[in-house]
Amino acid sequence: MKTPATVLGLGAMGTALARAFLAAGHPTTVWNRTPDRSPELDDLGVTRAKTVADAIAASPLVVVCLLDDASVRDTLAPAASELGSRTLVNLVNGTPEQARRTADWTTQQDAEYLDGGIMAVPVMIGGPAAFILYSGSETAFERHQADLAALARPTFVGSDPGLAALHDLALLSGMYGMFGGAAHALALISSEKVSPTAFTAELLVPWLTAMLGAVSGIANDLEYGAEPGAAGSNLAMQAAAFGNLTEASHAQGVDPRMLIPMRDLLDRAVAEGHGDEDLAATVRLLAKD
Amino acid sequence: MKTPATVLGLGAMGTALARAFLAAGHPTTVWNRTPDRSPELDDLGVTRAKTVADAIAASPLVVVCLLDDASVRDTLAPAASELGSRTLVNLVNGTPEQARRTADWTTQQDAEYLDGGIMAVPVMIGGPAAFILYSGSETAFERHQADLAALARPTFVGSDPGLAALHDLALLSGMYGMFGGAAHALALISSEKVSPTAFTAELLVPWLTAMLGAVSGIANDLEYGAEPGAAGSNLAMQAAAFGNLTEASHAQGVDPRMLIPMRDLLDRAVAEGHGDEDLAATVRLLAKD
Repeated sequence: MKTPATVLGLGAMGTALARAFLAAGHPTTVWNRTPDRSPELDDLGVTRAKTVADAIAASPLVVVCLLDDASVRDTLAPAASELGSRTLVNLVNGTPEQARRTADWTTQQDAEYLDGGIMAVPVMIGGPAAFILYSGSETAFERHQADLAALARPTFVGSDPGLAALHDLALLSGMYGMFGGAAHALALISSEKVSPTAFTAELLVPWLTAMLGAVSGIANDLEYGAEPGAAGSNLAMQAAAFGNLTEASHAQGVDPRMLIPMRDLLDRAVAEGHGDEDLAATVRLLAKD
Repeated sequence: MKTPATVLGLGAMGTALARAFLAAGHPTTVWNRTPDRSPELDDLGVTRAKTVADAIAASPLVVVCLLDDASVRDTLAPAASELGSRTLVNLVNGTPEQARRTADWTTQQDAEYLDGGIMAVPVMIGGPAAFILYSGSETAFERHQADLAALARPTFVGSDPGLAALHDLALLSGMYGMFGGAAHALALISSEKVSPTAFTAELLVPWLTAMLGAVSGIANDLEYGAEPGAAGSNLAMQAAAFGNLTEASHAQGVDPRMLIPMRDLLDRAVAEGHGDEDLAATVRLLAKD
């Protein structure tokens, strides 16, 4: 028999997780504050627990997918005595600090703790593109890795329980940076009635794909040090050319706000004597504040 | 014989352009304000003109690669009478407005005008990854497309001479957004001594590559309209989760400034009633200011 699994919380993501466990053949118990949520799970053979304590008691693997960090504490505290010898997998969005606090509390209940960052939207759960970052008890990860693979590709990033949230938030930061730049790009070309889909397919996506090589270059310079000017366009040249971006945005009636932090960061790098360096210098400026 | 070509301006980029013309077998004439710049071109058979007028008179195809828009006017004005029946290709970084002004002036001299945006650093010129966006006279583009291919893959984006600069600046905006997000991501993971190169190779680059699909989705929604909620994570949900990003950044000692414009834009989208929409709504907010 496959490992019994419990899912606490049946929002869109919790429901997708329970469905994935059921589809992979795991006896699956669910609990939700509002009972009878997601009735489609009943046809798939789910067991509904009346209390959080019953839900935890039902499975050695307990996955938490509640609203936020505060609701995790409120929900688990009354059922703490049931947690002993179980593995608690916390998939709630949170910060590294919150993960570390919940890890401490969980190990005080003689349970093992894994924190997870889901890199997917609910519709992707159980599919090939989704992955979940885990940190915390490596023993628990190894024991349940095959079970967790029913949800998404499991990726262990370290025994410090805060590391999954840290990696999750870092990846989301990278994504929102890309989305913000793309939003500005699309606003600019839309100001002249250029087709957004043609621009994106023929130019923006191939260009960003090519520039991913420069992202790897930044990481390389950060880790091993850079040869100044090796990239062919140092920060002083980039700062000098940046004015065209904001000037043209204003002229086209596009709010330049997405560009301002990078303009300011380049200007500051030059003012502080890093004009002949490459973009890795901007990472150091962000980190030392 | 291949079309004779002239390059005005021998900075790092102008020198690379002249070298690429010479390598492809074009009789190549150069002019630079400071004579004898880039002596390595002499071994390749370049012709040095003493004046701008001589340089323009030497070739039907005249490529301008000077410092900025102001230097284009200053340099060409005294030699304007030589421009008749030539094609002027302006590869100086600039704004759409500047390109349109230079186009007007050039056509008044009975010359044809192409504006270009170089999507490459000098070392990439003549290589397979570089491309140059052109706009302006489609006749001139068709006549010289094969000549211009010696420099980089030529891509025509429209007869409005401002469109090459607009597309160039849009692509740079997208790139700087991605770089800004990556810089923040690298600052975050560096705060815990995670290896930047391992994080980038194993997680950040694959993740951003996957999220390029969402960039295409934004463009699609913008052009054809979106089904609210189709992406699985609407703006209200994204705005609510964004607080973790800034909170965790502060806690890790990382300056959150790169994230602030996107946080504010999501908050504004929700406040203005777009909470159930997807990211295409943020493009419209940038454009309507």
